[in-house]
Order: sequence, then C-alpha cells, then structure tokens
Amino acid sequence: MSSNLINEIDIVKASTSKISSVDFENLTFGNIFTDHMLMCDFKDGAWQKPVIKPYEPFMIDPSAKVFHYGQAIFEGMKAYKDEKDDVWMFRPDENFKRFNHSAKRLAMPEVTEDIFIGGLKAILDLEREWVKKGKGNTLYIRPFMIAIGSGVIAQPSTQYRFMIILSPARSYYSGEVKVIIAEHYSRAANGGIGAAKAAGNYSAQFYPTKLANERGFQQIIWTDDATHTKLEEAGTMNVFFRINDTLYTAPTGERILDGVTRKSLIDIAKRDGINVEIRSVLVTELIEAAKDGSLKEIFGAGTAAVVNPIVGFSYQDNYYELPKLENSYASQLKEKLTNIQYKLADDTFGWTVKV
Amino acid sequence: MSSNLINEIDIVKASTSKISSVDFENLTFGNIFTDHMLMCDFKDGAWQKPVIKPYEPFMIDPSAKVFHYGQAIFEGMKAYKDEKDDVWMFRPDENFKRFNHSAKRLAMPEVTEDIFIGGLKAILDLEREWVKKGKGNTLYIRPFMIAIGSGVIAQPSTQYRFMIILSPARSYYSGEVKVIIAEHYSRAANGGIGAAKAAGNYSAQFYPTKLANERGFQQIIWTDDATHTKLEEAGTMNVFFRINDTLYTAPTGERILDGVTRKSLIDIAKRDGINVEIRSVLVTELIEAAKDGSLKEIFGAGTAAVVNPIVGFSYQDNYYELPKLENSYASQLKEKLTNIQYKLADDTFGWTVKV
Repeated sequence: MSSNLINEIDIVKASTSKISSVDFENLTFGNIFTDHMLMCDFKDGAWQKPVIKPYEPFMIDPSAKVFHYGQAIFEGMKAYKDEKDDVWMFRPDENFKRFNHSAKRLAMPEVTEDIFIGGLKAILDLEREWVKKGKGNTLYIRPFMIAIGSGVIAQPSTQYRFMIILSPARSYYSGEVKVIIAEHYSRAANGGIGAAKAAGNYSAQFYPTKLANERGFQQIIWTDDATHTKLEEAGTMNVFFRINDTLYTAPTGERILDGVTRKSLIDIAKRDGINVEIRSVLVTELIEAAKDGSLKEIFGAGTAAVVNPIVGFSYQDNYYELPKLENSYASQLKEKLTNIQYKLADDTFGWTVKV
Repeated sequence: MSSNLINEIDIVKASTSKISSVDFENLTFGNIFTDHMLMCDFKDGAWQKPVIKPYEPFMIDPSAKVFHYGQAIFEGMKAYKDEKDDVWMFRPDENFKRFNHSAKRLAMPEVTEDIFIGGLKAILDLEREWVKKGKGNTLYIRPFMIAIGSGVIAQPSTQYRFMIILSPARSYYSGEVKVIIAEHYSRAANGGIGAAKAAGNYSAQFYPTKLANERGFQQIIWTDDATHTKLEEAGTMNVFFRINDTLYTAPTGERILDGVTRKSLIDIAKRDGINVEIRSVLVTELIEAAKDGSLKEIFGAGTAAVVNPIVGFSYQDNYYELPKLENSYASQLKEKLTNIQYKLADDTFGWTVKV
C-alpha cells in the first residue's frame, strides 16, 4: 500500500457536523451515520479515484443491476478508541481478503488494498471524534459494493460502486437470545454463495427469522440444507457449542462464513488452554448433550454482536434451557477479545492496526 | 380490481418522447427504456398512491437495505401488439401471484392487484407506441420491488419501492446455446429462496456462468445442490428434455421457479397430444439417452427467451451434441405459444389480457 494514500483521496468536508445532536448513550444499532462517506466507482474496467464527501443519498438508475440481479456484498468491522485517544481497527486485512473473496464469487471486480485499507484509514482519520472512548463504544464500519450499471439483462454489471459508511454503535443484541434449530428452511446451498458476505444471503433469512420471532425466538441456528442434521451458523453469527469443557464450532466452507470473530475466539481459546474442536456438531449430539447435562454453553460470534450467549434452543417443538454459568467460556472469551480490541491487554497476535 | 384505477394513479407526462431516437430493428436486450416508469412506495405500513412519471434516476440512501441485505424481487413479462393495434399482456395474474409469493418469502409487503395489474394497464396504455407490431417485437415489462428503508441492521425494511419499467425487445439469445451440467456450483438450497424471483438468486449464478462462458458454453443447467444428480433448471429458464417422443420437465418447488412459459408450454403440449411427464430427470438418464440416440431435444423456456433450443451439453468434460430436428417440439411449441401471444391463433386458454 502506498504510504501517502490519504493524499490520493479527494476529501470534501461537511460544512457542519451532526455529532453534537447524537446521543451516544442511547444508540440503536445501525441507523445513525457519521458526517462523511467514502465512494469509489469502477468503470471502463478500472477503479476511479476515491472521494470522501458528506454522507448523503445518491442518484441511481431504476434498472441498476443491484436492484434486479443482487450484485451486492459487504463487510462488517469496528473501530475502537483506547485510553490515549488512539483509534484502532481489528484485523482489517481479514475483512479485505473476505471482501474480495465475496466479490469474486459474485463476479464483481476486486478492490485494491489502497482503496479498501487506505480508504478505511482515511475516513476513520477524518471521523476520529465519532469513535468514543470506553469499552462497549465502537464505530461500526460498513464497507460495501453494489452494481450500478444499468440494464435488465441477467449479466454481471460493468459498473460498480464501493463505499464505506460509518455508524456509532454500542451492543447489537439486547436481552436474552433464544434460538430455533432449523428443520425446514436453509441459509445456503452446497456450491452456493453462503461463504460470501452477499446481500442476498440475508434477505433469504428474514422470513424464517420472522416466523421464529413470532414464536418468541430471536434467531435461527441453520443446519445443512440437504439433511438438516448438522449445525452450521446462526443468522448473523458463527456459532460455538461447549460440551463438557470442549468448545466445538463447524468448519467454514462453502456454506459457512469465515468469521473474523470466530477465528479470533478460536485462537484465544487455544492460547489459553481451552480445548477447541473444529467439526460439525450434529443436532442429535446437541440434544443428547442437553439431556445428559454435558451441554454447558451455546454462543454466537460476530463483529456486530461480538459474543452472544444463547440461553436456550428449540428443536422439534421441545425447548432446551442452558445452564446459567458463572465464568462461562463466552464471558471469558468476550472479555479477552474486547480487551485486545480496546488495547487493554497485550495484542500478542498482532491483530490491531492503528489509524 | 377497481375499474377506474387509472384515475387513481398520478400521471406526470414526459415533455418529449425518446421514441424517435430508438432503432427498433437493432435492439439489444434490456438497455433502452420507455419514456415513463411507475413508482409506488410503501411506508407507515401501507402502499401510497402510485405515480407514473418520466423515466429517470432516483435518490437513495447509501444504507438502503436493498444494498446490504438484498431485499429485491422482480418479474419478467411482455406486452404484444396484434394486427389491429391492440396491446395485450400474457397471463399477468400469474406474474402477480408469483410476485407476491416472492415478496412473502423475502419478508416484503405484498402488493395489491390495483397496484400491480392496474399499474401495468395504466403504464402500458400510456406507452402503446413502444409496443411494435409484428411477431418478434415485444415490450419487455419489468415490475420490481426494493427495500429503500435505511439502516445497516440485518432486519427487514419498513419502507419499500414498487416500480414498473419497460424496455422494447426482440429475442433474448442469439446464436447457438450450449450448456454445461452443473457438477459443483448450485442455484438454490432446499428451504432456500430458489422458488422466489429474488435478485440474489441471479448474482449467485454469474460467476459459475462466467466460468462456463470461458469454456465456450452460454448457460448452465443446474442440478440439485446435495447430490448433483437431478436436472433442475437453466440460469434464467426452466428446462425441458425430449426423450423419444416424451417431454420431461422437473416439478417446480422450493428450488425451481414456477415459470409462466413453462406451464403454458406444458398446457399446449398436452392439448396437442404430446406426452408430458413432470418429473426430475437424472443426469445419468440424460447421458444414457444421449448415447443411445433417444435424446431428441433440450430446450429452455422463459419469458425473455421464450423457447431456446440447446444444441449440445457438456458433462464431466464430455460433450454431447443434440440432433438437428426439423419440426422439433421446441419450434412447434414456440410457434403455438407466440401465435397466442400475438393473437394470431385462438386463445382457447384465456391467457391474453387486453390493455
């Protein structure tokens, strides 16, 4: 990456800042955006010069391919402020890599490191004030790319728009999370786009999740679509199961997103002597473990939610409650991970990147 | 449907028409649009008054849910002009029904018949001049709905936009179509959204189709994702196989779109004494039939392409060429279907609806 990248981005500053009107103590996730956004268009086979400008709506043609053929991918990341007022990103290289993996799978152009990493640094540098000190405060980062070329023929677009928008955030979920194990609906096909962070993967989950919500459950744990016997991931999170003192999580692959939080938790757990097995857990195993008491914890892991303990699950209309543990793996791992992110613990892994 | 619906739509006419600048003899599919578009927004839990206005780009927030979570569905239809200059739609009730099926599956609000069918009639009435006489000339109709509510939380939007845009069209595919039988990639999961006309289903196919294109094939015939043994549908078409004198096509269901052209061809074939079997055809059956000469035809069926004969297919790196038949089922059925659509034959099925 060129070191003078910030000079290569056009910056048009907002004339006034919205920041004083924001109640940082009472944020709901994802609906307030900072003063600026980064925008970079791809046309004539090349990425154009990125621009950072005031956050605002833009014009788009009704026949834009994103509306008709769903070429849209994104990433979810966070920025953190330490006690010295420095701003940090967490493993942005992983998000960059996954973003380009998603781009490839959806026949979209890959972005350069200059645009993705350099763009992140430039816009975060400009929006430092929006990253608040104190654990739990973050600036949620949403890089995304959409197909803006026009035309209703089912072919990849020739024009794209890469953007970064930023939203101050506290925790994603509130309250207890109960889940349903999927018995009919599915998240991803073999040979499909489940491993890509593609917009289309999310809308597919809304209806089944709505049905779950109506029954009093917040999320679904997805199973393999062919047999519904293997536990895969939750709606917006990877999922971990603790049986006795071993932590299990499914291997990532074509159907399961390679989550950055997931892989970071695995590394922390292993470093600290927790036995981790990366393998598919069967629904039958889970039920058996719940019945004989060896199932200690289930938790989700993802950037937005960080670590999200699950209090119980439903399968075939039976509800299984999980024990309330003190010093759970979920709470230990969350504490250790966020301590690294907020620079309260040594970053022995080299995961944090200063803005 | 209320009979005075056109009066319930606000119409803002374009000051000038683009029509004289369009070369109707040399159209490429889907990149020229008529003078007007229909737009109808859903907010505060209700559909607002539809408006027909000049075709133009619109403003949208960078955090609009369609960009991030893929809530986007569409339909493909056509209008035809007969020798008396009347304009006709083909089975619009089927598209209306399927549109709302797609809406439900993606947790989007269903549209009313007034908006969908009434809106179609109103905009087609205004754009009559764009529907050209003569077989092969059509006005392609693209109703679609997108989530325009803002916010990067993975939940269904509360605001939507329904639109109808129109594009003059001749045939969709040109040249010979060769296909690859999918051995790794897939179009849809069990319990997924394959039966919905969802934008996300199409972008998922672009990369595998690009790989096929690079090998000299135009389309893929998708197989079931779990075993890749059952033939399902082509990229933008349902698919028919003729073995000896029987026509086979897969049953529609969760993974296969309930195509209007597909079901119309089945009805015409049955009426005219062609033996039709609705069942999954196995890849092994197809190979065997290709080898022993009983495989006579493969063709795709869809609104854009109508009937698209396939000249050969590849499976496991072997290429199987299909015989060149005179008076093929594909050509017979295409002729009969388009004769109904252009009012050149009696519409005994009651499929055509006058604008």
